[in-house]
Amino acid sequence: MVILQLSLHTPVNPQTNSAITGLTSTCQKRSSKFHSTLPPRLFITNSHESQYPFSLFQPANEGVAAIVFGDGPESRLYPLTKRRSEGAIPIAANYRLVDAVVSNCINSNINKIYALTQCNSTSLNSHLSRAYSGLGIGREGLVEVIAAYQSPEYEGWFQGAADAVRRCLWVMEEYPVSEFLILPGHHLYKMDYQKIIEAHRNSKADITIAALGASKDQDPGFGFLTMNSENQVLEFRLKSESKPISFVSEETSRKCNDIAYCYSSMGIYLINKDTVVKLLREHFPKANDFASEVIPGAISIGMKVQGFIFNEYWEDMRSIEAFYQANMESTKKANIGFKSVTLIPGKAEKSPVYTLPRCLPSTLITDAVITDSVIGGGCILNRCKIKGTVVGMRAKIREGAVIEDSVIMGSDVYQMENIQCGMNKKGIDIPIGIGEDTQIRKAIVDKNARIGKNVLIINKDNVQEGNNEANGFIISGGIVVVLCSAVIPDGSIV
Amino acid sequence: MVILQLSLHTPVNPQTNSAITGLTSTCQKRSSKFHSTLPPRLFITNSHESQYPFSLFQPANEGVAAIVFGDGPESRLYPLTKRRSEGAIPIAANYRLVDAVVSNCINSNINKIYALTQCNSTSLNSHLSRAYSGLGIGREGLVEVIAAYQSPEYEGWFQGAADAVRRCLWVMEEYPVSEFLILPGHHLYKMDYQKIIEAHRNSKADITIAALGASKDQDPGFGFLTMNSENQVLEFRLKSESKPISFVSEETSRKCNDIAYCYSSMGIYLINKDTVVKLLREHFPKANDFASEVIPGAISIGMKVQGFIFNEYWEDMRSIEAFYQANMESTKKANIGFKSVTLIPGKAEKSPVYTLPRCLPSTLITDAVITDSVIGGGCILNRCKIKGTVVGMRAKIREGAVIEDSVIMGSDVYQMENIQCGMNKKGIDIPIGIGEDTQIRKAIVDKNARIGKNVLIINKDNVQEGNNEANGFIISGGIVVVLCSAVIPDGSIV
Amino acid sequence: MVILQLSLHTPVNPQTNSAITGLTSTCQKRSSKFHSTLPPRLFITNSHESQYPFSLFQPANEGVAAIVFGDGPESRLYPLTKRRSEGAIPIAANYRLVDAVVSNCINSNINKIYALTQCNSTSLNSHLSRAYSGLGIGREGLVEVIAAYQSPEYEGWFQGAADAVRRCLWVMEEYPVSEFLILPGHHLYKMDYQKIIEAHRNSKADITIAALGASKDQDPGFGFLTMNSENQVLEFRLKSESKPISFVSEETSRKCNDIAYCYSSMGIYLINKDTVVKLLREHFPKANDFASEVIPGAISIGMKVQGFIFNEYWEDMRSIEAFYQANMESTKKANIGFKSVTLIPGKAEKSPVYTLPRCLPSTLITDAVITDSVIGGGCILNRCKIKGTVVGMRAKIREGAVIEDSVIMGSDVYQMENIQCGMNKKGIDIPIGIGEDTQIRKAIVDKNARIGKNVLIINKDNVQEGNNEANGFIISGGIVVVLCSAVIPDGSIV
Amino acid sequence: MVILQLSLHTPVNPQTNSAITGLTSTCQKRSSKFHSTLPPRLFITNSHESQYPFSLFQPANEGVAAIVFGDGPESRLYPLTKRRSEGAIPIAANYRLVDAVVSNCINSNINKIYALTQCNSTSLNSHLSRAYSGLGIGREGLVEVIAAYQSPEYEGWFQGAADAVRRCLWVMEEYPVSEFLILPGHHLYKMDYQKIIEAHRNSKADITIAALGASKDQDPGFGFLTMNSENQVLEFRLKSESKPISFVSEETSRKCNDIAYCYSSMGIYLINKDTVVKLLREHFPKANDFASEVIPGAISIGMKVQGFIFNEYWEDMRSIEAFYQANMESTKKANIGFKSVTLIPGKAEKSPVYTLPRCLPSTLITDAVITDSVIGGGCILNRCKIKGTVVGMRAKIREGAVIEDSVIMGSDVYQMENIQCGMNKKGIDIPIGIGEDTQIRKAIVDKNARIGKNVLIINKDNVQEGNNEANGFIISGGIVVVLCSAVIPDGSIV
Repeated sequence: MVILQLSLHTPVNPQTNSAITGLTSTCQKRSSKFHSTLPPRLFITNSHESQYPFSLFQPANEGVAAIVFGDGPESRLYPLTKRRSEGAIPIAANYRLVDAVVSNCINSNINKIYALTQCNSTSLNSHLSRAYSGLGIGREGLVEVIAAYQSPEYEGWFQGAADAVRRCLWVMEEYPVSEFLILPGHHLYKMDYQKIIEAHRNSKADITIAALGASKDQDPGFGFLTMNSENQVLEFRLKSESKPISFVSEETSRKCNDIAYCYSSMGIYLINKDTVVKLLREHFPKANDFASEVIPGAISIGMKVQGFIFNEYWEDMRSIEAFYQANMESTKKANIGFKSVTLIPGKAEKSPVYTLPRCLPSTLITDAVITDSVIGGGCILNRCKIKGTVVGMRAKIREGAVIEDSVIMGSDVYQMENIQCGMNKKGIDIPIGIGEDTQIRKAIVDKNARIGKNVLIINKDNVQEGNNEANGFIISGGIVVVLCSAVIPDGSIV
Repeated sequence: MVILQLSLHTPVNPQTNSAITGLTSTCQKRSSKFHSTLPPRLFITNSHESQYPFSLFQPANEGVAAIVFGDGPESRLYPLTKRRSEGAIPIAANYRLVDAVVSNCINSNINKIYALTQCNSTSLNSHLSRAYSGLGIGREGLVEVIAAYQSPEYEGWFQGAADAVRRCLWVMEEYPVSEFLILPGHHLYKMDYQKIIEAHRNSKADITIAALGASKDQDPGFGFLTMNSENQVLEFRLKSESKPISFVSEETSRKCNDIAYCYSSMGIYLINKDTVVKLLREHFPKANDFASEVIPGAISIGMKVQGFIFNEYWEDMRSIEAFYQANMESTKKANIGFKSVTLIPGKAEKSPVYTLPRCLPSTLITDAVITDSVIGGGCILNRCKIKGTVVGMRAKIREGAVIEDSVIMGSDVYQMENIQCGMNKKGIDIPIGIGEDTQIRKAIVDKNARIGKNVLIINKDNVQEGNNEANGFIISGGIVVVLCSAVIPDGSIV
Repeated sequence: MVILQLSLHTPVNPQTNSAITGLTSTCQKRSSKFHSTLPPRLFITNSHESQYPFSLFQPANEGVAAIVFGDGPESRLYPLTKRRSEGAIPIAANYRLVDAVVSNCINSNINKIYALTQCNSTSLNSHLSRAYSGLGIGREGLVEVIAAYQSPEYEGWFQGAADAVRRCLWVMEEYPVSEFLILPGHHLYKMDYQKIIEAHRNSKADITIAALGASKDQDPGFGFLTMNSENQVLEFRLKSESKPISFVSEETSRKCNDIAYCYSSMGIYLINKDTVVKLLREHFPKANDFASEVIPGAISIGMKVQGFIFNEYWEDMRSIEAFYQANMESTKKANIGFKSVTLIPGKAEKSPVYTLPRCLPSTLITDAVITDSVIGGGCILNRCKIKGTVVGMRAKIREGAVIEDSVIMGSDVYQMENIQCGMNKKGIDIPIGIGEDTQIRKAIVDKNARIGKNVLIINKDNVQEGNNEANGFIISGGIVVVLCSAVIPDGSIV
Repeated sequence: MVILQLSLHTPVNPQTNSAITGLTSTCQKRSSKFHSTLPPRLFITNSHESQYPFSLFQPANEGVAAIVFGDGPESRLYPLTKRRSEGAIPIAANYRLVDAVVSNCINSNINKIYALTQCNSTSLNSHLSRAYSGLGIGREGLVEVIAAYQSPEYEGWFQGAADAVRRCLWVMEEYPVSEFLILPGHHLYKMDYQKIIEAHRNSKADITIAALGASKDQDPGFGFLTMNSENQVLEFRLKSESKPISFVSEETSRKCNDIAYCYSSMGIYLINKDTVVKLLREHFPKANDFASEVIPGAISIGMKVQGFIFNEYWEDMRSIEAFYQANMESTKKANIGFKSVTLIPGKAEKSPVYTLPRCLPSTLITDAVITDSVIGGGCILNRCKIKGTVVGMRAKIREGAVIEDSVIMGSDVYQMENIQCGMNKKGIDIPIGIGEDTQIRKAIVDKNARIGKNVLIINKDNVQEGNNEANGFIISGGIVVVLCSAVIPDGSIV
């Protein structure tokens, strides 16, 4: 059996293609087992040519609405996605993953964002609504959340990103824009979307696809594109051939006119509004996915598809390890990764990363040695050592704890020590936070977890993959992930 | 085939009961055809007794979160619910139906409201998020919308109101409250919920059900309850017997101690948090509906269930006709119906009906005779006659139009006459609004409709029921309903 | 004795100049009596020349903060300004005067507005704070109100517009902008400020002054400027000579190179930030006024001052009559005046006039004939005739009333008829609103006024100017103005 | 010469009384020099008696509006008040002083707060407007700022707290409340105002005064009151006699019926609305101050004045040293002082201290040893040692810095190191923050200060009082205070 996901970036697998018709879309728990065998050959040539540079009469930001997919292939980041969608995962202490893309939109002066959600969408919807939907005067409803819904005409869930856009078109096409910018909501990067908008308009393209220009051999799962020297997409394939033509730097590409090179699609599409309507309603009314169906289809019917090369930091969080690494980078002295452009205070002034504004108490530190770490608001850090760690909002770290190279997500509420709300559930008496004399290394501790005293979370046996959900944790890529609200008893050794 | 709805007030039919296990819940288009034959006999006795009046140490409003069902059995109000759920239907020019219940909560000092939505939820979610979710300091996230979602553990839609509550319990039980107040979101009435909270706490009940005290023979579909003189529920039946014991006024009831009388449930339940958790997770983990399963079940296992009699205006909008009537009442000179307590300016000061604040332009009237009507913001009324009519936001009524006893819902946007956005869709050139010399009587004109010139919408043939969706309208209970965004060509006669 | 006002547009009188040093600035009640004698000759030549068109690297809106003067010469609109500053006067039913300028800023993409206030500023501050100051994400504090304040260093009030800017510079210069746009806050017009910003930057000017291009002989009191064919200001005079060189249309001006024509300044200045700092702190540290001191001074020291000609509707509300006329224009069938561009629904979509969003009940009309009128939200109009009238928010007009060619400002609150709050003050029992069978013609009825039954407000004796404040009204330009909260007893004839 | 301040808590000096008539109120720089000679004898007896306990029909919070004085006697906290009023001084890293009192109001369910401001009010007005004035639905305009203003009727500044209330009464009396709660806005304490409201209503008092119950010999400057066993105020004196009758604990007082004891007034008055109007307009129309004029006056004319004893933590910030101490207490392990009840995360959940919500980046710490400290949001702490210190928002502490027992207020903006905005002012090149290898001990570093490298701020010569504003600091009570935006060059020793 094969199962599709609501996702702009549905990993393009052989099954995906065959699965497109008829199957119900569902939220996968673990999709890795579905990957296999050979890709279908989607090999389409597009020979349109750009003609006259478009004279830019309107500001680049006018007339573009963004469509953000809040849900990612949550299977990949399970168990962080057990009760939330990817976009809602806390990152760098104070933020949610989706804040990166929404902030890109705000900083690019895009004033209308539709967030399409379906899987485990509660916390994401809540975050987006509270943080962005009530913005008054002149920006009414900056972010509008469109959750999957039933209607008399259609009772099923969204069957993929293209299906989701199709079913929500009646809402979005009301808004007076000329293009839609389709964005995966769980990627970490900083892009001025005005640049892709300008390139799109100048080339008079029907569709412009953002593509990774870096030469590293990445396959984010959105397909590969071959462009000519004017960035027109000549071919679009779901899977790189056994031997890709070449992954090259932009510089090299630029030098060699008329020779095609291969880039990875980022799953970001800028499409003219009319084009979207025609593609989804007329040409491909049954297509569920962009990468495997709509984009190749558009090329096949002769639409002009352009590429836009992006050479900066980009991280698609395609595994627990990637998520962990992105967090680690935010704690380093050197300004690398996403931190280098957005999360570092100071640099953040010009194009900040926004999130839900809060009025948390200040962080209290009674006696801590802290190295290369990021500390969120409202924490209570008693005598402890913290190194190379992201400490999230309201985290409580008790006497004698030692935390290294970890992500402590913190807590949604403060716990009254003597009230011990929720304690009666299981008779446990371990409070939220990290207990006395506990040591944690290379772990991710999800929100509201209760780690007891003298616990060792060090992946003692150096396990690479392991599932121990019953006891409140799993191990993925050698990283221990303690589940949300999990209880780890005193003295446990992981 | 039988189909269930997400609804607190699912009309309790024979099929409902048998349908509970296994069927997929969907949004019905028209459910009336499903009503038939005999009700199942659910006849349960409850003999608990109240003992000591509870001393009210905490303010009545403390510790209660409301759970509002934004979706109703949308079938009943089709086609108003073609693209929106019941809660999002415009009412009395400036409001949405759900504003009545949300305002009741705010005025009763309930500071946390969970809105559970599933069917056609887009416009309702948007309204609730923009109007109520961003309220800052001390009321963060007054209304939290929980849209139906998929998760790795559960891929289906909500299967009914009880199922919806069960699946969202993990979110709602985090909030530190002692009771949940479960509310259908599409009823029109004004209630100070503090009173039911006080009655509930004083009687030390597990569950308190609001019941219609008026003697009229109403069956809102939530079942019937028989109470003793202390308002304890003795029996709960889904359908009144061929002969109900008696529908009596509260006064009569009060006089006759120990004699049971029969009341209609309003589908409003105040339930202790612990009780909800136990009922839905332990006792009846498969129950989908409150009226047919959870409430009778609670009585059967000996829980204390109380009734709370409500004697004021209440309208459940169970048909196009009821919706039409509620609107008509808001236009009358006399203060009757819902208008008598809430919508009339002046009376509204003390416990206002809230909605999304707007900064619409003032209404422009060039030459109008207006009688017994309600006019929303930002209208343009040219030389016209308007009588007994609700005219919604941004409505445009042109020269010579005559509107009587109707509901004109208005428009979401102004239309630039010369830009004629969207015109190119079908080559039509009829602008949004009511055309020149058009006459409308006893009709509901949904939003963004384009009524041409010299149109007669008067139900010429006095049809009672008729479906002419292809031409943009249906007739229900003798009332013509012009669909949202419909186009009625010049000179048409309906 | 001569008294100065906090006002960008202080009418430039002879005394003004001599009054600049030493006198305390105060809020005048009526200043007309102070106008007299001869203007000082300020006759300054400026011969800078523009050289190279400036290449526009940054968006025109970047780096400009607006400074809005909320206070006008309130004397002119007394008694509307008895308890409010000009900017807070209600206009066109739903708005306040200052909304026009603030909306211009928002629509011109200016994201920082400092509102400097001093006279009767309470209601203006409240309006600006509630409507515009809490705008979150990316627009934090769109409008920042700087009320006059005392400090250890300076105990006096602002002594004029230039003094006000000087004293608030320490706040405003923190904001990273390149120019300040100085705006009187009580003018009615629609301008895209991006155009003056572009002209300013292209001409590399130090200061650019907006000037009325229309040929009508207006003197708004901000002085007159003579420009060459490249719009460079050659002369700046406080008062037009006995014979102005010429008031010409822009077209004419354009044709005749090197010939200078005379325009009226609108009191709008775009000034480079550095230039403001230098002018106010170094060159003219004692100057209180822009028109009479700073601008002529800048020209005299050789700064480059440009003019920017504005040819559209502009109304400076310099008298009760002008205010009355602007309101009347908003009720006309034809789209003239300010209505033609902003207040008319439909036209308003693209660049709307913003104001405090409200959730007022719909207007109830029981039996009214309404012609050429504008009706605000939440009114109650019983059997009445309304013609050519602006009816403000929450206005209540009772049975048999006839209103013509008037401005009824409405009410801040609804009055409970039977509670009669505030009634006990004076034993009066006249409710807020217009009483039964009352007739009003060519009048302005300020907020919360209580007009009794059978009252005639028709300026029976055709008085042109008259002050009867003791009885609740004055007459100005033949227009009766009923004061805010005034009580007009039953049967009164005015 | 004697000068009065706008202040509820004007230190009650001999001169105050004589100064009341005629003098202009101004913002003092240093008022200590004005204190002298003998107090006037205000010795008034009040023998009203409470009769029947008032039956509390309405919730205690209904019908009370708070009047908060944002300005304090800024002289006392100079230079922290050089450019801001006391209420706007940053405290405990994330807050402003006024947040304590406003949060008390919110937590006591008081929904209308008028903030009266005059001295250096810009930053306070901005903080209050952005944080509290835009709160929507049901709480529109929670905090309304009334800045001192000029009007045609009255051109002067507020002459004292009573004068300020009198002049703003026309605004505040519109609001439908039964009592006003008058509050100094710069005190640090946590009080449930419902309790004083209940006591007031139960005793049917005209005025209820909050009084310090602690036995320590405090004179906050609001006068002293002697009460009988029923808490009725018998005497009210401006200055305690050479020997106060007795400062006693409440317990002692309670035991001894009919024996009067002496308490310090906290400057908090709960007054019936009618009483306020009568006192300020009729009885004492010239009174400027509450403590010296209105309260003794009310007693003298036989009004019923009650006391309400408050025994918890209260700090009136009457000196730099008191402010410093309050900050120090927030860093201690033990929960003492204000921290014990409000600022400590966890305890803060139930009745939080609110402030302007922000979305600051997380704090980055590269290598720090931190002991007993409070850290605000968005800081950058490089290799440094921090002990017993409050580190405010966006503070930047560089390599090798050592900070002890200090208050580092942080910064309003991040400074781009390489842009060095503002640097060109004086040719300095010291960035905002604390420089490399600098040591600071027992100091307060105000916002945006630029402390160079290798600086020693240790009060080397152990000076107690000293003014060196020219070099950017003063010393008060042995505490070095570095001024806002001051520049301390590399290698300086203080």
